Amino acid sequence: MTTQSIIGIMGPGNHALATERQLANDLGKAVAQQDWILLTGGRPAGVMEAASQGAASVGGTVLGILPGGEGTEIAHGVTLPIVTGMGQARNAINVLSSHGIIACGLSLGTVSEIALALKAHKPLVLMPQNPLAQQFFEYLAPGQFYMTDDVNLCIDYLRSALHHS
Amino acid sequence: MTTQSIIGIMGPGNHALATERQLANDLGKAVAQQDWILLTGGRPAGVMEAASQGAASVGGTVLGILPGGEGTEIAHGVTLPIVTGMGQARNAINVLSSHGIIACGLSLGTVSEIALALKAHKPLVLMPQNPLAQQFFEYLAPGQFYMTDDVNLCIDYLRSALHHS
Amino acid sequence: MTTQSIIGIMGPGNHALATERQLANDLGKAVAQQDWILLTGGRPAGVMEAASQGAASVGGTVLGILPGGEGTEIAHGVTLPIVTGMGQARNAINVLSSHGIIACGLSLGTVSEIALALKAHKPLVLMPQNPLAQQFFEYLAPGQFYMTDDVNLCIDYLRSALHHS
Amino acid sequence: MTTQSIIGIMGPGNHALATERQLANDLGKAVAQQDWILLTGGRPAGVMEAASQGAASVGGTVLGILPGGEGTEIAHGVTLPIVTGMGQARNAINVLSSHGIIACGLSLGTVSEIALALKAHKPLVLMPQNPLAQQFFEYLAPGQFYMTDDVNLCIDYLRSALHHS
Repeated sequence: MTTQSIIGIMGPGNHALATERQLANDLGKAVAQQDWILLTGGRPAGVMEAASQGAASVGGTVLGILPGGEGTEIAHGVTLPIVTGMGQARNAINVLSSHGIIACGLSLGTVSEIALALKAHKPLVLMPQNPLAQQFFEYLAPGQFYMTDDVNLCIDYLRSALHHS
Repeated sequence: MTTQSIIGIMGPGNHALATERQLANDLGKAVAQQDWILLTGGRPAGVMEAASQGAASVGGTVLGILPGGEGTEIAHGVTLPIVTGMGQARNAINVLSSHGIIACGLSLGTVSEIALALKAHKPLVLMPQNPLAQQFFEYLAPGQFYMTDDVNLCIDYLRSALHHS
Repeated sequence: MTTQSIIGIMGPGNHALATERQLANDLGKAVAQQDWILLTGGRPAGVMEAASQGAASVGGTVLGILPGGEGTEIAHGVTLPIVTGMGQARNAINVLSSHGIIACGLSLGTVSEIALALKAHKPLVLMPQNPLAQQFFEYLAPGQFYMTDDVNLCIDYLRSALHHS
Repeated sequence: MTTQSIIGIMGPGNHALATERQLANDLGKAVAQQDWILLTGGRPAGVMEAASQGAASVGGTVLGILPGGEGTEIAHGVTLPIVTGMGQARNAINVLSSHGIIACGLSLGTVSEIALALKAHKPLVLMPQNPLAQQFFEYLAPGQFYMTDDVNLCIDYLRSALHHS
């Protein structure tokens, strides 16, 4: 395959914590520095926007898979907006289009994407560490994901997973 | 509104437990006996099929929202198959089209639907009781759902929720 | 198959002509009187609404496949609203879910549905007669559809097509 | 807006004519040479593939909006595959994501995209000249599209339309 790897960063939108936004920014940068394409949900809010800006700040390519149909509400940092007009149904596209996925924080939308990612057997990292989420998803899909607070360990895990897939 | 209420029953497919299938059958019957329309994921497997058969056994109307594009794989009991051809993206349609939702057992697909149902503020019942799932979803959406083992209590909860919405 | 046949009636919305609305109303009635389920695009406008009202006036079941995500804008006559939240992408669901399709008038949305219906090899009737549309679609899909002004001939054609499929 | 313009090239897949493939290749090259992003339906067939290869041959970026859910069937030349798993419903994404659209040849899928593009008021060029298609779409959407056999005139039209939108 001559196409570049696409890594999705999913997470809370309007209610993202400042720490989640900072982590997402660092992750977006790190993904772009691997020469991976970043994929986000594309809206100008929370983790989507922070990750997109992080990747763009180091010259990365950022796919934004927009839920709306107008293509007007786009996160700073998105370089390639995909306008779906499909609302939350676009979460399935986020997952299917990503070769690996990082969940940065937990919102209800993010949980729907984690579940679809595990169902599709995509390499998945949950950040930051959250014992309750770990217990819940281990119960549903034992051994199928990695959890860490560390950006470098996250990237190492994905690099290894992409190499073996 | 002159349309009937639509209640979605979601749950595991191929890996459903016998107890989940039995519960789904009872729930499907109970939903139909309220003169509510049943909505399921429509595939011939697990909770989808057991609920559909339960409702059909007492003359209920059963919408099956099929993930495939051919319309050939349909659960017994489905009276109105909707052919989406959209795979797991159809989970969003399941949730948006239901006035209330019962999750009967937990698969990864079901978890994606629970998350979308909470995000859309739909009346939601989780069955059977599962302390880990309760803790996880209370953390994400406190006070937004009901959990029980009892079919009658489930129906009472939904009837009340539909009445107030 | 124990499920009833589903017939889709597609056509212009806000810009439907009075003659198209009248024809749609007659067609909706005729579809319901065959004990077929009617499927429409579900919005409270034009051919969608007129067909839904026609079927409902004789006690028919009417599936409305709504483009919006709220489930609030529903044509009179729709008995089972399906809320997709997918905009015009729901046109594909309209076509895949119908065992036979009647295009009553031509709007741009209707043309997209005619094209998808021919691509999916669905039995298709174009009404009323329109020599330019006939020439265009015969060029694209020779011999694959029927065109008439007559409700009875339309129903006869679909009954025969359903019988042989 | 700091994002690049995205131009969709749509056309027949498996049944594309050799002349349509050659034209699509030339158009793909010309789009990339404008520093526009190319968007295609992404499958390894016909106009989708020829346009993708044309753009890639001059170093262009090519979005391929795939109908399948596996991400395995991808046209040569696509640099960024988007995996929708939504079949023909992805045609709506093709249209909404493109700032301008070129229909190169006519298949039933292409006609569905032309109709959605006109409905969404997107700048649209039909190639090569086809008097029947011109007459049909002028009847539906007078003055809303351009038709030519000439790649340079097509690009000029789109450049002007993007500038004024």
